[in-house]
Amino acid sequence: MIEDGIYDETGVLRAEFLNRVTSAINDRDKAVLTEEVGVLHQSEVGDLLEALSPEQRLALVELMGSAFDFTALTEVDEAIRLDIVDSLPNAQIAQAVQELDSDDAVYILEDLDQEDQDEILAQLPFTERIRLRRSLDYPEESAGRRMQTEFVAVPPFWTVGQTIDYMREDSNLPDSFSQIFVIDPSFRLLGAIDLDRILRTQRAVKVEEIMHETRHAIPATMDQEEAAHEFEQYDLLSAAVVDENERLVGVLTIDDVVDVIQEEAEEDLMRLGGVGDEELSDTVLATSRSRIPWLLINLVMAFLAASVIGLFDATIQEIVALAILMPIVAGMGGNAGSQTMTVTVRALATRDLDIYNAGRIIRREIGVGLLNGLILASLIGLVAGFWFSSPDLGGIIAVAMVVNLLVAALAGIMVPLLLDKAGADPAVSSAVFVTTITDVVGFFTFLGLATWWFGLI
Amino acid sequence: MIEDGIYDETGVLRAEFLNRVTSAINDRDKAVLTEEVGVLHQSEVGDLLEALSPEQRLALVELMGSAFDFTALTEVDEAIRLDIVDSLPNAQIAQAVQELDSDDAVYILEDLDQEDQDEILAQLPFTERIRLRRSLDYPEESAGRRMQTEFVAVPPFWTVGQTIDYMREDSNLPDSFSQIFVIDPSFRLLGAIDLDRILRTQRAVKVEEIMHETRHAIPATMDQEEAAHEFEQYDLLSAAVVDENERLVGVLTIDDVVDVIQEEAEEDLMRLGGVGDEELSDTVLATSRSRIPWLLINLVMAFLAASVIGLFDATIQEIVALAILMPIVAGMGGNAGSQTMTVTVRALATRDLDIYNAGRIIRREIGVGLLNGLILASLIGLVAGFWFSSPDLGGIIAVAMVVNLLVAALAGIMVPLLLDKAGADPAVSSAVFVTTITDVVGFFTFLGLATWWFGLI
Repeated sequence: MIEDGIYDETGVLRAEFLNRVTSAINDRDKAVLTEEVGVLHQSEVGDLLEALSPEQRLALVELMGSAFDFTALTEVDEAIRLDIVDSLPNAQIAQAVQELDSDDAVYILEDLDQEDQDEILAQLPFTERIRLRRSLDYPEESAGRRMQTEFVAVPPFWTVGQTIDYMREDSNLPDSFSQIFVIDPSFRLLGAIDLDRILRTQRAVKVEEIMHETRHAIPATMDQEEAAHEFEQYDLLSAAVVDENERLVGVLTIDDVVDVIQEEAEEDLMRLGGVGDEELSDTVLATSRSRIPWLLINLVMAFLAASVIGLFDATIQEIVALAILMPIVAGMGGNAGSQTMTVTVRALATRDLDIYNAGRIIRREIGVGLLNGLILASLIGLVAGFWFSSPDLGGIIAVAMVVNLLVAALAGIMVPLLLDKAGADPAVSSAVFVTTITDVVGFFTFLGLATWWFGLI
Repeated sequence: MIEDGIYDETGVLRAEFLNRVTSAINDRDKAVLTEEVGVLHQSEVGDLLEALSPEQRLALVELMGSAFDFTALTEVDEAIRLDIVDSLPNAQIAQAVQELDSDDAVYILEDLDQEDQDEILAQLPFTERIRLRRSLDYPEESAGRRMQTEFVAVPPFWTVGQTIDYMREDSNLPDSFSQIFVIDPSFRLLGAIDLDRILRTQRAVKVEEIMHETRHAIPATMDQEEAAHEFEQYDLLSAAVVDENERLVGVLTIDDVVDVIQEEAEEDLMRLGGVGDEELSDTVLATSRSRIPWLLINLVMAFLAASVIGLFDATIQEIVALAILMPIVAGMGGNAGSQTMTVTVRALATRDLDIYNAGRIIRREIGVGLLNGLILASLIGLVAGFWFSSPDLGGIIAVAMVVNLLVAALAGIMVPLLLDKAGADPAVSSAVFVTTITDVVGFFTFLGLATWWFGLI
């Protein structure tokens, strides 16, 4: 139970624990550190590192020496990881990397400069070096980068008994695994067997009789998001990764995939909020740089909407109430458009929205836009009419509202659908388009209707 | 590879496949259906069901009879699931439910009326009934609801050999499992062993010697989101679920947890977009009902912002340019506030933002707000100054912009933090507060400054 551990009931590190660690760092007390930190899970060490100051982090890693589990570095922000790794001598990293599973080693190495990478790899034993190099040669965010190159593979003619004996005797097995693979002499993948299947089978049975076809072997070049989708779709725990010749090169495991799923869901959320690849540890300058492009695009669009208002400056001078009410029409369109857009972007990401239901969803959204438009229009019409003692103004804003909510519904679903069809990421740019459309249409309909109705042209 | 299967390269069901199925349904051709659909994975059948019309879905399930795998119903929207289940006789559901893993059975049963539930449970064999009833008695969205009640448990004094022999002979084992549990005679949990550990150990060794402490046993009443966090934090593949007396009652597996992680990430995204628990299969009326509350709250807030503009109607009548420019100030504040808010809400959800870094993040956000405010203010000041040939107006909008971006940064981080501290879900209501604050402050600063500067009070 975490309640008994280093976290309090809300999942935050306990201050007492943090104090013990920081005073041990200040006292340079290696023994206490090893006792307190050495027993923690890698993700707990990661949380600890994130709670420490940059100087304390480095001191902790240096004081603990070989007792520090480098796997913890895969659990922290990229900026923190780079900060620690860059300050350590390459020889020490090379030493530490050898203790890691290959996927964790690659995760740490892939962000380093080419030069540091080469220097560290050069200090590794031959097989280790070849394995890591091969993973690193695959594209970023591919299955080949995320795979573990340690796995158990046996020939098809082995019996279950032979296989079990081999696993009992070989000390070079991966730390943990949930299936074994069956391969031919040239490492071509023939099938896979889950461990529970092996345990349930008599010793005399040949593995080829109980292996299942590996329908879901993952090409090493496959994008990690695509691979994660395979895991979700088929409830996989691990999957073979194969090269272009269908040879087994590694295994992708669910724990790495869970991280990918989290990252991808986070990405959509951030994109919709107009935020790029930023991390909590980023500086003011880095954060500003990552956010300003979206703000600039929005600024241009805001001027576009303003110029629409500018068309009606004479009308506004005549009836100031229009200036007071117009942001309501535009804003409510933006809100309704965001609702539809959010649902659409998410459904596209989970592949729940496709040609088989797009027609029905478009019709539904138009229906919802019309219905909600009518509800909001009656309310807004009444309030505005009484506020400015002008039933005409109430009627005009009500009509403008229905129009804008219909347009918002259409824009909310069509913009992401069209962006997706054009091969763009709908999460990145939908918001700007949708709010610009609802602003422009909102201002134009409301001010235009008023100009025409009150005969101000 | 999916490319060879029922999906095209973009992951959408192939039209040829769908046509074969629908014509088989029309021909009431049971043999073809069983051949085409019977071989599919449950999630593929789920995608197929979602692509069919409601009548075709029912016809498919009825035609396939016992060849239809009810697990597929766990892969579709709740509305579709209920539609199918409600139209089938309870006796048939009782029959089908017996074939399922307990977690899938609970998933299908939990949404039914109490009455139907009881009737179906009454038709099940005693042990099955007791097991499902126990799961259903745990709260919604708890680990107890998601757990599988089938598991392998052995006494501590058994040897590895005995355990393997037991697994080879017992036909009542779960369909698949990745660890076995060690329990005392009263079912109290003593430890767990991963299967690879068993396979690597000599037959004579006792299981109590190789079992590991189950530090991460999950109480059955724990919220599923909390349980998912444990899985992520400790890279678990499966975990024991225990009742209030520490007795083993089930096992939670990573594939169910992956679904929970997806749902929770989706929830945050939807909440931020102002959307509740809606599904693609919902009707116009249901969708409208789920979205209108958020729109109504926004409407009230929009009137609040409008009334701020109303304070300055005399000023606007004098200088119409203010009405043209004011939505830019308010809108850009809203955009910048959304950026900060999105990052904050996400960091709170992943527990990356806590007391140890909140101070630093608040300072960073203020820095970013100031920096981006200055950049945008210079641009907007220049453009507005030239547009209306008034350097004064350019200066006023620039100052208002800096103020509003600072306020946006503060609101973007403080609103979710305070909501979280107050025990509310920051994703649900942050957006309304933040945009209201940036609207009100944007309008007030810009119009107020202009009124004061041009001496219009």
